[in-house]
Amino acid sequence: MKFSPLVQELIESFRCLPGVGAKTAQRMAFHLLERNRQGGAKLAETMAKAMEQVGHCQQCRNFTEQTLCDICESPRRQHAEQLCIVESPADVIAIEQTGEFQGRYFILMGHLSPIDGIGPEDLGLDLLEAQLQQGGIKEVILATNPTVEGEATAHFIAEMAKSFEVNLSRIAHGVPVGGELEYVDGNTLSHALSGRKSYQV
Amino acid sequence: MKFSPLVQELIESFRCLPGVGAKTAQRMAFHLLERNRQGGAKLAETMAKAMEQVGHCQQCRNFTEQTLCDICESPRRQHAEQLCIVESPADVIAIEQTGEFQGRYFILMGHLSPIDGIGPEDLGLDLLEAQLQQGGIKEVILATNPTVEGEATAHFIAEMAKSFEVNLSRIAHGVPVGGELEYVDGNTLSHALSGRKSYQV
Repeated sequence: MKFSPLVQELIESFRCLPGVGAKTAQRMAFHLLERNRQGGAKLAETMAKAMEQVGHCQQCRNFTEQTLCDICESPRRQHAEQLCIVESPADVIAIEQTGEFQGRYFILMGHLSPIDGIGPEDLGLDLLEAQLQQGGIKEVILATNPTVEGEATAHFIAEMAKSFEVNLSRIAHGVPVGGELEYVDGNTLSHALSGRKSYQV
Repeated sequence: MKFSPLVQELIESFRCLPGVGAKTAQRMAFHLLERNRQGGAKLAETMAKAMEQVGHCQQCRNFTEQTLCDICESPRRQHAEQLCIVESPADVIAIEQTGEFQGRYFILMGHLSPIDGIGPEDLGLDLLEAQLQQGGIKEVILATNPTVEGEATAHFIAEMAKSFEVNLSRIAHGVPVGGELEYVDGNTLSHALSGRKSYQV
């Protein structure tokens, strides 16, 4: 005994979403069918459109439905001399929200992970190399995540970028603002100590 | 600074799913766009189809894309004298899996909840009353959840059904099989004691 074929198919389709198992998929299907058909229809329409139309920006690889994303198209940024390399589009939003960075981005859409079969070509590093070759970039800021994979990816890109005339930098590791030293892990604390700056009064 | 309009719209649409907040919606959108466009397109198609075609069985109110669901259409069940009242389609599956019940079902699609504005008419109790009036049903099994709302709903239906010539029963409350007495709550244990049966050797 199962649900009707279409309901069963809907439940199984929901499982393609990350973190959605059998029970959650069932809950989602019932919720939409019982309480929010309009929302479901809207989601279906948007999803179909997005899967077809959203591609990658040809310059920075961010998600966009145009050829170039808004940041790459901005005249203020086109001749920027700084290139910030991040792992995901969400990182771009986070950095943009600080208002500190006026340069261009390059989004890897992941990190090197041989165990998952993700190599340099999946991160668009050939495109990055071509951009560095073109010139115009004076500083490459490695802003991958401070994780093992993120560090490995940063190292790989640094090795590649070294043959071009660019300054390389890595975002600072240290204690997060508002945190308590007591609860900061030893590794971070070592970084915070070795990266100390002279204190201006 | 936001994501591109279509990506932003996709993220916002995902929030109509139960238990999906801003971060999860973003993760779902990125996952589909980056790793599973085919699954996303399939989900969109199935969802659009289901939102349009899935309705309620005219007899038991279960989800189905036909007029009558498979159970109600089964010739073996059409003249069943037992009617089992449950809250959700998932409960039907659970009971069917025991193989213990050969009667018909009536699915409330919820429970009475005045605070959420869910009254008798939302649970299709008029349809249930019409079915009891038609006759043929000898026993109504109240299998709503053993929660406050479930009990209230069962009580309400019992009051309604009492004017027809049917036997009313409520599924047994007691200790779950495989559990340990030590961890069973007092209320359940009281039910288990007061509902004790003579032990056959």
